[in-house]
Amino acid sequence: MSQLKAPYLLFIGDAKDPLSIKMARSAADWSPEKCLGELRLDGCEVTTGCTAMSLDEAVSRGAKSLVLGFANSGGYIDSAWLPILQQALASGLDIISGLHDRLNDLPELVAAAQSNGCTLHDIRHPSAKLRTGKGYHRQGKRLLTVGTDCSVGKMYTSLALTKELQDRHIKASFRATGQSGILVAGDGIAVDCVVADFIAGAIEDLAPANDADHWDIIEGQGSLFHPAFAGVSLGLLHGAQADALVVCHALGRSSMRAIDDRPLPSLVETIAVNEQLARTTNPQAKVIAIAVNTSAVDEAAAMAYCREVETQLGMPCVDPIRHGVSRIADKLNG
Amino acid sequence: MSQLKAPYLLFIGDAKDPLSIKMARSAADWSPEKCLGELRLDGCEVTTGCTAMSLDEAVSRGAKSLVLGFANSGGYIDSAWLPILQQALASGLDIISGLHDRLNDLPELVAAAQSNGCTLHDIRHPSAKLRTGKGYHRQGKRLLTVGTDCSVGKMYTSLALTKELQDRHIKASFRATGQSGILVAGDGIAVDCVVADFIAGAIEDLAPANDADHWDIIEGQGSLFHPAFAGVSLGLLHGAQADALVVCHALGRSSMRAIDDRPLPSLVETIAVNEQLARTTNPQAKVIAIAVNTSAVDEAAAMAYCREVETQLGMPCVDPIRHGVSRIADKLNG
Repeated sequence: MSQLKAPYLLFIGDAKDPLSIKMARSAADWSPEKCLGELRLDGCEVTTGCTAMSLDEAVSRGAKSLVLGFANSGGYIDSAWLPILQQALASGLDIISGLHDRLNDLPELVAAAQSNGCTLHDIRHPSAKLRTGKGYHRQGKRLLTVGTDCSVGKMYTSLALTKELQDRHIKASFRATGQSGILVAGDGIAVDCVVADFIAGAIEDLAPANDADHWDIIEGQGSLFHPAFAGVSLGLLHGAQADALVVCHALGRSSMRAIDDRPLPSLVETIAVNEQLARTTNPQAKVIAIAVNTSAVDEAAAMAYCREVETQLGMPCVDPIRHGVSRIADKLNG
Repeated sequence: MSQLKAPYLLFIGDAKDPLSIKMARSAADWSPEKCLGELRLDGCEVTTGCTAMSLDEAVSRGAKSLVLGFANSGGYIDSAWLPILQQALASGLDIISGLHDRLNDLPELVAAAQSNGCTLHDIRHPSAKLRTGKGYHRQGKRLLTVGTDCSVGKMYTSLALTKELQDRHIKASFRATGQSGILVAGDGIAVDCVVADFIAGAIEDLAPANDADHWDIIEGQGSLFHPAFAGVSLGLLHGAQADALVVCHALGRSSMRAIDDRPLPSLVETIAVNEQLARTTNPQAKVIAIAVNTSAVDEAAAMAYCREVETQLGMPCVDPIRHGVSRIADKLNG
């Protein structure tokens, strides 16, 4: 896709649920230097933590893009937003959306963007020409986060690891595979939206050959055990050709996301199946650590759980938010 | 998709390679009752076996659809065909294409179709509203063909098995997942063309709950071991929720299709991994037979190979073309 232009004005409308503004919060948390402020409507009950400002104020301070900060159910573009989008285009801003509905399917927006020299970015929809995968060995080191389920912290863990490596002056790039990650990184590919034939090929292009001592930290999606999304996860695993895998998990979840009565797989099974299938394209692929979202329990219980897992599996187990990821990064240092 | 209207006139242009007219040949082989004839251009060196006839002759005999019988590399619509397509529409025929390029993206064809009350069918592109999979148990019996590689006879085996079961008065439906299969069946979904998030969900919709004694025979795609297409294969495996799996294989292939230096997996490994992963959505999933394309060797060698596999694996092993599939169907009879 064409490069996203910062600084961003994060549009969060009249959102009431913090989860509904994941796009905006990801950018604010991980690319604060790209985020000028947030644009709120009456009734909004959440915040990204950025300064609230009007559209005009943001433009006068140098904003380059208006970001639709939402991930609403259904992924639709609310018609109530259209006047604001028109105003943004009239002010010369690009618009960035991670919704399923496309900005580029709305003729009035397309016309306004053209006449103002602005770009409409539908970052969930791949714009690059895609190809099928090959699985040929490529230079460089790659790490992929995989999961026992969806929404278990794969993006967070990947971003935290990239930052930790960069802080250590190890060459590392975050490779985004979902809309929130793309907004943070400025580019990437929403792998769940590519045509099924191209899943692995898209990831081969996203994380191409690189310096021998460079790490691509690839954001995983879904789970090999999820009955809806395992195809995406397997294509991603094959395309990533990862040397290192980190298994992400959420403590205390009783069923897989959006599915009734489906317990999560064990960590042991998750490790075994991911390593087994990853070796189709990288015979050296190995799970090196576990990253757990322990927010369901208190600090002491979280630490006890992680220690138990470490003893059982013989590899680091941390909550990236509570404990940081330095012990995972240590495994990549050698 | 809307129902395809037979009888078909199979357009094979000036094709010279029998493999390049797979769409047309599949229809002629498996739905001869739907195929009125073939339309050839000067220089054509292949045939479907159907009677050659002109467009006007086909129309006067009752043809309802012109089928683009090709699967050219790149999947493009050759501009040399456009006058024929226009003539077909002017004569009231629908047009059916399995190419990657869409008939519906050509404004002059769309206009001609509208003014003549005809339909342009891009059968490789899903028209149904798709959803994500759930993996919930559904009634009815299902068989899925899986493979050591792409292009190893999964469609042929599935069609042959469906016919064999129907000949035995067992309730059975062929479920098409590729463009050639769709043309034969009259409907289906090209699973390699759906958005990655929807692979499993598309197959749940393609093969929905049915009578307890009804078999859906689902055409497989790709291979769990193919570095380009395994994501499609796994989503299909999960969505199919198959009770019975048939492993398809091609004898004498030195590397996986379109990939250098990648030997095919063994039958033992193919069985083990398919059963393991299929059990995510059907704990009873079991490989019941092997179907081998033995065309690379002579009759005696083919028989010797199949006998050896049977001894090793303890299940029927047949070449569906040379030996038929009755011994596979026997396994579904009980």
